[in-house]
Amino acid sequence: MKSWIEVPTDSDFSLANVPFGVCSFPSSSTLSSTTLAPCTPRCCTAIGNHAIDLHLLAEAGLLDNLLMTTESDESRCSEIITNFHPRIIFSQPTLNEFMSCEKHVWVAVRNRLLSLFLDSSSSSSNNDIQIAIQADNRLQQNSALQSQCMHPLSTTLYHLPASIGDYTDFYSSREHATNVGIMFRGRDNALQPNWLHLPVGYHGRSSSVYPSLASSATTSENDCERNLVGGEKMSTVRRPCGQLQVDPLDPAKGSIYGPCKLMDFELEVAFFVGGPTNTDYEQDHNQQQQQPRGRPLTLSEAQDRIFGYVLMNDWSARDIQKWEYVPLGPFTSKNFATTISTWVVTSMALEPFRCETSAGVQGGGGEPTPLEYLKDPNYGSYDVNLSVSIQPSSTSAITQICTSNLKHMYWSSAQQLVHHSVTGCPMNAGDLLASGTISGKDQHNFGSMLELSWKGSREVKLESGEVRKFLKDGDAVIMKGGVKGRVGACRIWTMLCTNFAGYSISLRFIKRESSRKHTKTTRGEIY
Amino acid sequence: MKSWIEVPTDSDFSLANVPFGVCSFPSSSTLSSTTLAPCTPRCCTAIGNHAIDLHLLAEAGLLDNLLMTTESDESRCSEIITNFHPRIIFSQPTLNEFMSCEKHVWVAVRNRLLSLFLDSSSSSSNNDIQIAIQADNRLQQNSALQSQCMHPLSTTLYHLPASIGDYTDFYSSREHATNVGIMFRGRDNALQPNWLHLPVGYHGRSSSVYPSLASSATTSENDCERNLVGGEKMSTVRRPCGQLQVDPLDPAKGSIYGPCKLMDFELEVAFFVGGPTNTDYEQDHNQQQQQPRGRPLTLSEAQDRIFGYVLMNDWSARDIQKWEYVPLGPFTSKNFATTISTWVVTSMALEPFRCETSAGVQGGGGEPTPLEYLKDPNYGSYDVNLSVSIQPSSTSAITQICTSNLKHMYWSSAQQLVHHSVTGCPMNAGDLLASGTISGKDQHNFGSMLELSWKGSREVKLESGEVRKFLKDGDAVIMKGGVKGRVGACRIWTMLCTNFAGYSISLRFIKRESSRKHTKTTRGEIY
Repeated sequence: MKSWIEVPTDSDFSLANVPFGVCSFPSSSTLSSTTLAPCTPRCCTAIGNHAIDLHLLAEAGLLDNLLMTTESDESRCSEIITNFHPRIIFSQPTLNEFMSCEKHVWVAVRNRLLSLFLDSSSSSSNNDIQIAIQADNRLQQNSALQSQCMHPLSTTLYHLPASIGDYTDFYSSREHATNVGIMFRGRDNALQPNWLHLPVGYHGRSSSVYPSLASSATTSENDCERNLVGGEKMSTVRRPCGQLQVDPLDPAKGSIYGPCKLMDFELEVAFFVGGPTNTDYEQDHNQQQQQPRGRPLTLSEAQDRIFGYVLMNDWSARDIQKWEYVPLGPFTSKNFATTISTWVVTSMALEPFRCETSAGVQGGGGEPTPLEYLKDPNYGSYDVNLSVSIQPSSTSAITQICTSNLKHMYWSSAQQLVHHSVTGCPMNAGDLLASGTISGKDQHNFGSMLELSWKGSREVKLESGEVRKFLKDGDAVIMKGGVKGRVGACRIWTMLCTNFAGYSISLRFIKRESSRKHTKTTRGEIY
Repeated sequence: MKSWIEVPTDSDFSLANVPFGVCSFPSSSTLSSTTLAPCTPRCCTAIGNHAIDLHLLAEAGLLDNLLMTTESDESRCSEIITNFHPRIIFSQPTLNEFMSCEKHVWVAVRNRLLSLFLDSSSSSSNNDIQIAIQADNRLQQNSALQSQCMHPLSTTLYHLPASIGDYTDFYSSREHATNVGIMFRGRDNALQPNWLHLPVGYHGRSSSVYPSLASSATTSENDCERNLVGGEKMSTVRRPCGQLQVDPLDPAKGSIYGPCKLMDFELEVAFFVGGPTNTDYEQDHNQQQQQPRGRPLTLSEAQDRIFGYVLMNDWSARDIQKWEYVPLGPFTSKNFATTISTWVVTSMALEPFRCETSAGVQGGGGEPTPLEYLKDPNYGSYDVNLSVSIQPSSTSAITQICTSNLKHMYWSSAQQLVHHSVTGCPMNAGDLLASGTISGKDQHNFGSMLELSWKGSREVKLESGEVRKFLKDGDAVIMKGGVKGRVGACRIWTMLCTNFAGYSISLRFIKRESSRKHTKTTRGEIY
C-alpha cells in the first residue's frame, strides 16, 4: 500500500496513522481565497511531511457520502451515513464536534482519507489496512486543491485538539503506584487497599492543559534531535512558586512561599472521550422541564467512546504537592501546566497494536477479580514504546533517561471510562482522561524524576556530565511514543512532545520579588 | 427608594438584589417577534415577581452608553464605557461573556438596571444604594417593551448561569473541617497541619454541575413551602451506585457494587469567577508562537474578579467516598451531581453585608499569620443566613435541620482565588469556586448529614415523626440563603435551592439490575 503523497520510510505520519489535530497556517500565502483566514485554527490530518486541511477537503465535497460498512459472517453491506455535516464539523476550531459523532463516523472519515491518500496504481497490495480500501483519486488529480489544503509541517502551528470540558488524571500504572507507595509508606503497604479494585483517579484542571508546539513529524530521528538543539517550537513551562514546608520532615513547622525546588515531569498517555454524552432524561416532579442526567456507561459502550490518544506531561511540583495534598489530593502542585501532544492518534490506528498488559492478570495470580461492571472482555493495552529524554540548556547532548510502554497499565482505558461514569458522571466529547505516570519494572523504566532519583536519593547521570535529581531551569523534556511496524514500513509512527521546564524562570522570580515583595528568594537559592 | 415594578415586601428580588441569570420562556406568547426563539436561553435579571430579558433591553438601546464613575476625595467623574457590546453579550445563552468584563462594567450595568427600575417619583430617597442613581424612565414609559421583556417568574425556566470551564471545591469552614477531623482522626489531630496555612481545595467535575429549577422568587415563605409540597420545579438527583467496602471497618476485605447507602448533602456557597483571564504571554524559543501562560493573581486583583454567588448542594455519597478517596481525594462519590441555585447574587449586592468571620482571627489568637500573598486587607465574609430543610416524600411537613451562615468561613473568597492561581493556574470567567460545607459551632449549625448524625451515631428527628441519619429516597432537600435588611425592607432577599434526592431511584436500580446483571440489589436492600 502506497500513497501518492511522499511518505519517508521513518515518517511519523504513514498511511497507518492518519491522526487528527487542529492547526493554523499564518505563514501560508495559498489560503487567501478560502473561507477561513490562515490564522484561524481548523481541523486537520497529517501524512508524510504535510498537514492536510480537512475543512478544505470538506468544502470540495471530498468528505461527502461517507459509507458505513457492517459485516456479518454472511454478508457485508454499506450504507451512506446521513446527518453528518463535514463542512460544518471540520471548519470548527476544535475537534469536539467530530469527536462527538459515533465511532462509525470516525471510521468512515478515516477510511475516506485513506482512499484519498492511496495511490490508485498500488491499491491492490493494501494488506495493512484491515478493511478493503479503494483509491479515490479526486485529490490526487486536483493540483489546485492540493496547493490549498497541503501545508508543510515545518510551518504549521498547533493548537489544542479539543476544548477540554473536564480533564481527569488516573493512577493506573501498578509499578508507579507501587514505587510511590514504597517511598512514602514502605514496601508492605505500598498499594492502598482500593488500588486493585478500582482505577484510582482525580479531577484535574482543564484550564491549564497546554498544547505542545513540537509535535510535528520529523523525517528522521536525527533531524528531530537537531530541531530540539536548535530550540525550534519549544513550549515553555514556568517553574511555579507556591507553598512549601519550612521543614520537609515536619509539617507542624508550617510553610513558606517560594519557587518549587522539586520540579518533575510525569510520563503519561491520555485519551480523548468521543461519542454522545451518556445522559438520559429525568422529568421534574410536575413534568415541566426535561433534565438531562448522567447514566453509567457499560464497558462495551465505553470501548466505542475512546476517540484517540496523545502523549501527556503532567508537570508536578513535588514539594508543593507534599504539603498540600492531604486530605483532598494534589491541587496547585499540578494545576499550573499539563502539556499534551497535539496530533490525536486514533484508537483505530492503535488497534493492530493491542497486547496483553504487563501488570498482572486481573482475577488471576492473586489479583482480585474486577467487579462485574469493570470486567473488560478485551482487557489489555497497546504496545506503544515510550521514552523521556532530557537536554540541559548548556549542551546539545540529549540523554534518554527513561523507556517505558503503554502496556504497563493495570487498568484499561475502557475500564477507566466506565468507572468514571459509574455513579452517573456525564462524559462529554473532548474530555481528556490520562493514564497517570507509566512506569515499568526496572529503574530505567520509571516515568518520573521522583522515581528515577528515588525521592532525590540518587543521581541521574546525563551525557553532558551533569546530573539530575529533579529538573533544572532550561531543561528540555522530550517525550516520545511510538509503535514499530509489524507488517512493513508503513506501520511506523511516532508521537512527540517537547517542553522546557523553567525556561528563563529565574529572571521571572526576581521580577516578582521586586514587584510583589512576597519572597526573599534570590537567583542563587532557586536551585 | 421604590421601583415602579411591584416588589412585594418579602420578595427575593428587591432593588437591592438585581441578580443575573439565564432563563428561557417557552410558554411565552409575546416573544414571537423577537430575535431569539422563546425557548432559547438568554441573560436575564429579576425584580419582584418578574424575570427581565436583558437581551431585549439591550436591543432597545437601554443598555447603551453605560457610565463608569471614578471618585476621589476631590472629584467625581464619569465616562462612557467603550468596547462593551450589550446586544451581543446579553443574547448569549450563558453569562460568561458578561462575567469576563471588568468589574466596572458589572457595576455600570447594575446601576443602569437600577435606574431603569427606579420610580422617577421616588428617586430622591434612594439612601440604600451606595452611589447616586437617577431614575431612567425609558422602560417605565414603554409598555410595549415591558410586555415583551417582563416574564412572570412562575413560568420562567432556569438554566446554568454560565458554561463552567472548571469547578473547584474548597474546604474552608473551620468547624466542618474540624468535625470531619474529629470523626476520622480524633480531637487531637482534627485539623491537618496545612489547614490553617492555605485554603485546602480540590478540582471537581464541571460536567455534573446542574441548575436547580426552583430558584424562583416566592412572595412569602408560606407560598414557598406550598410550592414544595406541590412538587413544582424540583430538580431530581438520582441515588448513585458505585463501589462500597464489603466491610465498612476493614478495607482489606475489598468492595462490592451497589447503591450508595449514605447519601448526603453539603450546604455550600459558591462564587463565579469574572474578569479577564490571568495570563500573560510567553514566546517560544524561536519567537514563533505566542503562548498564553497563567500568572498568579494578587489579592487586590482577586477581589475584583468575584462576579457573584450562588447556593450549592455538593451531593455526596459518603460510603463510596470513604472507599475511593485515598490517596487522591473524592472522585465518583461527588461527580454524579452538584446543584447550584441559578440566580447569581452579585458581589456588589452583598457588599453592604460584609462582616467579620466567626472562624478566628488570622494571625491572632494562636492562628498562624497567612503568608504575604494570602494576606487579605479586607479579610472577612458576608453575613448571609443559610439553612437546610428536609421534606420527606410521605408528608407535607418540612423540617429545618440546619441553620448556618456564610460568615463561618475561615478563608475568604479572595484568598481562595489567589491561592488557586498561586502556581499559575489560569482562572477563567465562568469558573466556579465553592466554599466547602459551611458548618457553625453548635450541632444545629452543621451543614451535612455526616455531621448532623455524627457519622450515623445519632438520629435527626423530623416533624413528621420520621428520623434520618442520611437521606432517603424521595426526600426534598431545601437550601436557603438570605440577608435580612438593615436599612429597610428593600434589603431583604433570599436565594433558594431545592432538590430531591433519590426520587424514583428504586425503580431505576431494579431496571439496571435486569438489563446489566451487575448486582443482586433488590428494593428492600436499598435503604
